[in-house]
Amino acid sequence: MAKVLVVNGPNLNMLGVREPGVYGSRTLSDIENMLREQAAGLQVELDFCQSNHEGVLIDRIHAAFGTMDGILINPGALTHYSYALRDALSSVGLPVVEVHMSNIHKREPFRHVSVIAPVAAGQIAGFGAGSYTLGLQALADVIRQQA
Amino acid sequence: MAKVLVVNGPNLNMLGVREPGVYGSRTLSDIENMLREQAAGLQVELDFCQSNHEGVLIDRIHAAFGTMDGILINPGALTHYSYALRDALSSVGLPVVEVHMSNIHKREPFRHVSVIAPVAAGQIAGFGAGSYTLGLQALADVIRQQA
Amino acid sequence: MAKVLVVNGPNLNMLGVREPGVYGSRTLSDIENMLREQAAGLQVELDFCQSNHEGVLIDRIHAAFGTMDGILINPGALTHYSYALRDALSSVGLPVVEVHMSNIHKREPFRHVSVIAPVAAGQIAGFGAGSYTLGLQALADVIRQQA
Amino acid sequence: MAKVLVVNGPNLNMLGVREPGVYGSRTLSDIENMLREQAAGLQVELDFCQSNHEGVLIDRIHAAFGTMDGILINPGALTHYSYALRDALSSVGLPVVEVHMSNIHKREPFRHVSVIAPVAAGQIAGFGAGSYTLGLQALADVIRQQA
Amino acid sequence: MAKVLVVNGPNLNMLGVREPGVYGSRTLSDIENMLREQAAGLQVELDFCQSNHEGVLIDRIHAAFGTMDGILINPGALTHYSYALRDALSSVGLPVVEVHMSNIHKREPFRHVSVIAPVAAGQIAGFGAGSYTLGLQALADVIRQQA
Amino acid sequence: MAKVLVVNGPNLNMLGVREPGVYGSRTLSDIENMLREQAAGLQVELDFCQSNHEGVLIDRIHAAFGTMDGILINPGALTHYSYALRDALSSVGLPVVEVHMSNIHKREPFRHVSVIAPVAAGQIAGFGAGSYTLGLQALADVIRQQA
Amino acid sequence: MAKVLVVNGPNLNMLGVREPGVYGSRTLSDIENMLREQAAGLQVELDFCQSNHEGVLIDRIHAAFGTMDGILINPGALTHYSYALRDALSSVGLPVVEVHMSNIHKREPFRHVSVIAPVAAGQIAGFGAGSYTLGLQALADVIRQQA
Amino acid sequence: MAKVLVVNGPNLNMLGVREPGVYGSRTLSDIENMLREQAAGLQVELDFCQSNHEGVLIDRIHAAFGTMDGILINPGALTHYSYALRDALSSVGLPVVEVHMSNIHKREPFRHVSVIAPVAAGQIAGFGAGSYTLGLQALADVIRQQA
Amino acid sequence: MAKVLVVNGPNLNMLGVREPGVYGSRTLSDIENMLREQAAGLQVELDFCQSNHEGVLIDRIHAAFGTMDGILINPGALTHYSYALRDALSSVGLPVVEVHMSNIHKREPFRHVSVIAPVAAGQIAGFGAGSYTLGLQALADVIRQQA
Amino acid sequence: MAKVLVVNGPNLNMLGVREPGVYGSRTLSDIENMLREQAAGLQVELDFCQSNHEGVLIDRIHAAFGTMDGILINPGALTHYSYALRDALSSVGLPVVEVHMSNIHKREPFRHVSVIAPVAAGQIAGFGAGSYTLGLQALADVIRQQA
Amino acid sequence: MAKVLVVNGPNLNMLGVREPGVYGSRTLSDIENMLREQAAGLQVELDFCQSNHEGVLIDRIHAAFGTMDGILINPGALTHYSYALRDALSSVGLPVVEVHMSNIHKREPFRHVSVIAPVAAGQIAGFGAGSYTLGLQALADVIRQQA
Amino acid sequence: MAKVLVVNGPNLNMLGVREPGVYGSRTLSDIENMLREQAAGLQVELDFCQSNHEGVLIDRIHAAFGTMDGILINPGALTHYSYALRDALSSVGLPVVEVHMSNIHKREPFRHVSVIAPVAAGQIAGFGAGSYTLGLQALADVIRQQA
Repeated sequence: MAKVLVVNGPNLNMLGVREPGVYGSRTLSDIENMLREQAAGLQVELDFCQSNHEGVLIDRIHAAFGTMDGILINPGALTHYSYALRDALSSVGLPVVEVHMSNIHKREPFRHVSVIAPVAAGQIAGFGAGSYTLGLQALADVIRQQA
Repeated sequence: MAKVLVVNGPNLNMLGVREPGVYGSRTLSDIENMLREQAAGLQVELDFCQSNHEGVLIDRIHAAFGTMDGILINPGALTHYSYALRDALSSVGLPVVEVHMSNIHKREPFRHVSVIAPVAAGQIAGFGAGSYTLGLQALADVIRQQA
Repeated sequence: MAKVLVVNGPNLNMLGVREPGVYGSRTLSDIENMLREQAAGLQVELDFCQSNHEGVLIDRIHAAFGTMDGILINPGALTHYSYALRDALSSVGLPVVEVHMSNIHKREPFRHVSVIAPVAAGQIAGFGAGSYTLGLQALADVIRQQA
Repeated sequence: MAKVLVVNGPNLNMLGVREPGVYGSRTLSDIENMLREQAAGLQVELDFCQSNHEGVLIDRIHAAFGTMDGILINPGALTHYSYALRDALSSVGLPVVEVHMSNIHKREPFRHVSVIAPVAAGQIAGFGAGSYTLGLQALADVIRQQA
Repeated sequence: MAKVLVVNGPNLNMLGVREPGVYGSRTLSDIENMLREQAAGLQVELDFCQSNHEGVLIDRIHAAFGTMDGILINPGALTHYSYALRDALSSVGLPVVEVHMSNIHKREPFRHVSVIAPVAAGQIAGFGAGSYTLGLQALADVIRQQA
Repeated sequence: MAKVLVVNGPNLNMLGVREPGVYGSRTLSDIENMLREQAAGLQVELDFCQSNHEGVLIDRIHAAFGTMDGILINPGALTHYSYALRDALSSVGLPVVEVHMSNIHKREPFRHVSVIAPVAAGQIAGFGAGSYTLGLQALADVIRQQA
Repeated sequence: MAKVLVVNGPNLNMLGVREPGVYGSRTLSDIENMLREQAAGLQVELDFCQSNHEGVLIDRIHAAFGTMDGILINPGALTHYSYALRDALSSVGLPVVEVHMSNIHKREPFRHVSVIAPVAAGQIAGFGAGSYTLGLQALADVIRQQA
Repeated sequence: MAKVLVVNGPNLNMLGVREPGVYGSRTLSDIENMLREQAAGLQVELDFCQSNHEGVLIDRIHAAFGTMDGILINPGALTHYSYALRDALSSVGLPVVEVHMSNIHKREPFRHVSVIAPVAAGQIAGFGAGSYTLGLQALADVIRQQA
Repeated sequence: MAKVLVVNGPNLNMLGVREPGVYGSRTLSDIENMLREQAAGLQVELDFCQSNHEGVLIDRIHAAFGTMDGILINPGALTHYSYALRDALSSVGLPVVEVHMSNIHKREPFRHVSVIAPVAAGQIAGFGAGSYTLGLQALADVIRQQA
Repeated sequence: MAKVLVVNGPNLNMLGVREPGVYGSRTLSDIENMLREQAAGLQVELDFCQSNHEGVLIDRIHAAFGTMDGILINPGALTHYSYALRDALSSVGLPVVEVHMSNIHKREPFRHVSVIAPVAAGQIAGFGAGSYTLGLQALADVIRQQA
Repeated sequence: MAKVLVVNGPNLNMLGVREPGVYGSRTLSDIENMLREQAAGLQVELDFCQSNHEGVLIDRIHAAFGTMDGILINPGALTHYSYALRDALSSVGLPVVEVHMSNIHKREPFRHVSVIAPVAAGQIAGFGAGSYTLGLQALADVIRQQA
Repeated sequence: MAKVLVVNGPNLNMLGVREPGVYGSRTLSDIENMLREQAAGLQVELDFCQSNHEGVLIDRIHAAFGTMDGILINPGALTHYSYALRDALSSVGLPVVEVHMSNIHKREPFRHVSVIAPVAAGQIAGFGAGSYTLGLQALADVIRQQA
């Protein structure tokens, strides 16, 4: 059974509150439940982590080294400037799938650039909560192919 | 039953030949078969179109107006400069999902920019042939939510 | 009687459909009829050409060499990147008037730049279908002054 | 009868003197006469204003508020840097048509950018004195459509 | 009793008229009255000046040399390009406070840059008419600290 | 009675120590006392928070959702790169006033840009400790107008 | 006997017509004859293709896969923006020599950049029809060295 | 006897007051006297003009058309943005010498660029009041060579 | 005996794990031991701190104020964007030496820029663990010279 | 018999040593011999010059004035910054052909720009030692056409 | 008697030969004679140096340290990139006047930037050989003022 | 015994003279003596070379090929533009350590970029004469590790 760490960055705990016109009314907890159900069918075990602290996210990613098989991450606004988060992901050498609920490539210009992408297998953006389920499915495939 | 046009841009007819280290050995025909099988389960009907001619792609997209329910597109290198293709997609007013086999955000800088993205619901990049199946699934959901 | 080629680039066949908020409800055929009526009064004969294929447009412009007296062109999105179209126009040595239905200088930044302008006598943008009639009138004057 | 203010910016009083190779030998007064004749046929009344002083132009535009129905403007070199002139035009809320005698899009790069364009209905450039008559005709149409 | 010159640049005479959604319905005269009342309480005497002419503003600032104790200025659109206004302010060596009714840092990019800021003590932006009263209070403090 | 959260970002605990030539000798505690006195007169209740941790600031801002009426923030150096802080502020939907003790628009170029400004009502910079009192007064007005 | 595909892009059919001051009076057909004569001496067989359609060029290049030994290409204006043409060339894995009649590095800035160069063995520019004969000779050598 | 117009732009009336560390203590009047003395020896007659109004400077330059033989100009801060002043100078077709008291090429970056230079014979910068006398001498030579 | 704080930023706890091809197999603990031995010979006492939290690093640097004599720092990826870390270093007024194990000036472009450098005495990059020992030696000299 | 100066810039004396993977194992002397043989057949006489000193190259080019008929140059790394070398070439008014062994347009970005190109008839890059023989042949043709 | 070193950079030995349309037909030797005559009247003694070698120029400037009173320099094309020449000039601490025969500010963009200007008292450009005589006069004044 | 070439670029012969506030009063000869003493302890033999001529430096570096084991270089201002020096260093394939007396990363922006860095093992900047001793020590280690 593959083990996957699901990482959510700053402000994603506010889902359902923040700019619902953009992100819909589902809470992060709803999304985590949805992923848990999907995981069963994929033979994948999930571990969740959300923090508004870049450092906590990095610590948690380090802890995945040698214990997890892949990382599904929505880095929130850290996507656009946290080279430290990027180095953390590259340091543990696990397959990474990057997801975004909105299509970041059609929002403000600063959101078009991901400093995380160069260390990720792929990126999925624009499908709301669906970006997570698509991402988990994609990650499961990537892990299977590497196995 | 929703009808989806699957559009492939320049050079994708060379899949299985071109830079196999990057794109794998599956041909476009293999991918189309894979999508046909998936479509059945999603209650979706597919129409395929590949061309190396920007104009043929635009004509085909126009023809989808009033006859199809969504467009799944891998614009190939036109992703990066074809404002005409973008205007074609926006002119027909259908939901669009943009897919790329490689993670364009970690390749040469000119591949980081998509002029198509601002008219697409979402973008999926980096999962090889899997980008298409994830994209079709995502598009089916988008169409369902709009219905 | 001066002969004028009226060239319409990609997506202009969709007029009346595409973004009516921006371009109004008139079809390209309505505009061509309007121009035909106007042409009579200007002692000008018209030939029309619309294509979504850059290559078809270039072929048609070449064919105007030695047979037409001027070119009225709305290059659509090719305005912003088709150096091939520009070279075609410059190769035939005829007076060119460039028209745009919307005021491209107040839309997205990529639409502010015309690679066609350096080979055109003038540019008219922002008056909907009126941009064509103003353009034809202007072109008739330019041709007359060169005669 | 619609009332139109015709505004000419810095150096346009020198028409007929300055760079005749580019602008022809007609004086500003010739152009005003030409416009007056045309105006009669368009059921339009004209008011003229030329100044080399940005402040005078702004004062005159303010005075058009509530008394005129549209503005035809050749801002001269202020086109490229006078955000104050732009704000003046936007403050009075009248339809504006921007004209240039030369095709500014094929001259020095600094002349390709118009800070006025975002507050104008449209732009006409490259037809010498003809840019004014085309512009007046276009403006008359815009005013009629808003009435 | 400190003497303060209150300078308003181009188009601010149109307050209450221009883009009321952005600037509210108060006229410049209302704001001047509001400042006069506030001035009494601050032991400050005010002199007002509004002009759409950069040159008039510069002359007035020069005249403040040796006769006034500070300058409260809303430079309007000159904020973004008038190096001449900036040099005028620096030439008289008085404390300057720069105010803007709208938050210029969240409007069009060209409004994010102030060429005046490097010669001002501080900047206040975004509080409508309140930007002036906050600015006067701030300037009074700056003058007092220098005394 | 309106409730206001006063947020101070990284290094502001060092006030009175760090670059006194730029920021004066008042400590953060002095400023908080000054604000408390002023708050009474404004019918405002204050809550204070300073941290050198971006994550702590974000958590605190989230906690203000539904419990506070506005936020007064000096983001310190996070002003220039923390898109996560910006998203936090925008997620809680409260009026925000951004203050800086120095005039950031006349210091090093990187300090001229605020990524926070687009989600703030206004910005006050350059008046030392006075920026806070002006900011609190401005925020009280903004809250009152929204009530 | 090595087989070489000679590809000419948009507007090169106009040679002898277009800007003769820059390109001389030789027609494309003259150049092809000249190359045929040269080919005999080089033990090379030639196939010719000229089109104003990017798509036709791409199709023709794909058809060279497995049937030709090298490609001599003058991409015309597509040199500067056709990433699709570049991907076509890279997809067939044949040695490519890029030629230009004029010295593109001393013309307008947009002509200094070749998006084709990164997939070509070498580039020859500035020798009129001679660029083709030098290019064929160079390509014959490259093919021989790889054999 | 050649006639020369000496034009001084915004803020130069403040010479002797403004930033004396940079410009010395001489007033504009001192400089004019100095030039008058020098002019006698050069067989040149001088006319002086200083204004803080761009429009006044332009009017004055126009008036030199047909009445003066050359223009010596210190455009002050207009050097860096007044395309209107530049067009005025080019419209009258007289030889122009541009002078600056400070070496603008070693001050703030915005002062390194002169939009006036392309219409001037030459530029002299950095010699305080001496820039004027060197400039007058240079202009006298230019006029003599053209005679 | 001088007291030196040795600060290691994000991901440096992963040394020996992360990209060993670039950084070698030594752990951070090995490096700290190596520095302790060296310190004895330099008459320097060391204090160590590693964190993946920018805020923890800033707090620790503040605590060095008045208690330590210098700071040896490898800021990890914070080097490239943490203006907050930079302000922390500048706030305590101690000599700082910046070290990097790899030669950041030959890696990805974003790693060529250090926002920390302007507040450091010097920088050493490219010598693996040796960068630390060279840095400590350099810092000891800087401290001695200031004493 | 035409006389040609063959100029080689810095580091080309190291051919056969330096980055053989890129430039092959032939020495500069081998190339000179190869050119000598070719020259006989072209009725051309050669003079050789290699130096690592920009000044020596310039002196040698000056000496070619009035004594040689053309220059074949591989400027080495001076290609990218030596405006002095460019001015030298333009000062002697001889036809120049620029050659590079590697295809500079596909190497590091700084190597894509040639400051020499604007004064050369043409450029040949990417064919190893073959670039020289192609270049000599091209130059012989250019000289013949000018004769 | 003040001693002045007159330095001429690369290609200036070709004066009278190179681009006479731009620089006139006077040789460098003519200019040196002209300066010698002028020097007598200014109580200045001259030393001349021209080289196409950056290194020779630097050596000569170093030798001026302690033996000369000022430097008159036309750096030729080194103006635009030789930071080494600039550091040489700043190392000897003598007053420097920079001259150019053509008005570099209206030629190709790369010639608008002088890396020498920040270490020079002033710059004179555009007056042909006259730039030298004006420059020597200016330098003599600068030296006198420092004495 | 390892042999090391110590290379000093332009103007470093002026050490002790030039900008002593930045570089201290030690001469280059003092530094060479200091290095000689240090070399003994490191089992390293030194060879010295200083020149203001880029070409001399390149020649000297070439001569190190096959005779020396490493290069310690302070390229002076050539650091920022001499691609020829960089190619020379890369051509000889020896380990290189780059040193600078001042911290170039906190001086003028043009000094932040080293075109030498991509061919050096590491860089040390900011420690005055100490940069050399640290650099020699680092180089000795690099050589030892490669042995």
